[in-house]
Amino acid sequence: MAVTTIKAKTVLQEQVVVEAEVRGHKVRIDEPEHLGGTDTGMNPAELLLSALGACQSIVARTYAEKFDIDLKQFWVELEGELDTDGFLGKSEVRPGFSSIRSVFHIETNAPKEKVQAFKEHIEAHCPVGDTIHHPVDMDSAKVVIED
Amino acid sequence: MAVTTIKAKTVLQEQVVVEAEVRGHKVRIDEPEHLGGTDTGMNPAELLLSALGACQSIVARTYAEKFDIDLKQFWVELEGELDTDGFLGKSEVRPGFSSIRSVFHIETNAPKEKVQAFKEHIEAHCPVGDTIHHPVDMDSAKVVIED
Repeated sequence: MAVTTIKAKTVLQEQVVVEAEVRGHKVRIDEPEHLGGTDTGMNPAELLLSALGACQSIVARTYAEKFDIDLKQFWVELEGELDTDGFLGKSEVRPGFSSIRSVFHIETNAPKEKVQAFKEHIEAHCPVGDTIHHPVDMDSAKVVIED
Repeated sequence: MAVTTIKAKTVLQEQVVVEAEVRGHKVRIDEPEHLGGTDTGMNPAELLLSALGACQSIVARTYAEKFDIDLKQFWVELEGELDTDGFLGKSEVRPGFSSIRSVFHIETNAPKEKVQAFKEHIEAHCPVGDTIHHPVDMDSAKVVIED
């Protein structure tokens, strides 16, 4: 067991701009103009897909040598479906992603079968992928009313 | 039905640095030094929590008026547990988050009961929260071997 507690803080700014901060690293989140924002950053759903692709990439880097894969280039294209009626309360559909797909682009001289096993290993060991794919315990938020 | 396709692209750089790009917006992801990185950005698990807090914040901004909440300040502290043995393949434990908690800090003059109903509405309509809390269909990644 090597249980780690991961933390983040997000602060709502003007309109729908949000600043996230973790260990001094900041990310600006916003919505495009047609969704009521000023388009100065990714929106949260896009950032979630980015976290997934980044996670798959880091797992790939970490395990490439073990699988004897020369990783010359590695990039991921991600996409998923989300019904905005859920967020807007227009229907009982779930507000989140119904499905998410990844395409791994790998520049390598390794044979296909090795790359296939490598891919399966990445998916089975990716923390963000597992978090999205399977249910996670989430207690209802605690609220602190500030003076 | 207002199903939208959300997209992202991530490109592995040197070591475990990843650049995510969506509609021209870029985010740099890295790991801290004790996890083999150069600490030039959040790691993917932290970015996932940031996406969640940002989503909760944007839902809060969107619905505050409807709930008659004067939202002077709104920030979220997030934390979750992750067993790194899962990612490292040292045990059969899941690689992802086992649990995630949020604390909403709200500066408002609204009465407690209204704030409570507001909180429940935010949680029920947050796309990223729903995506993490409940299972999502994820096909195994397609692999393209590049020349």
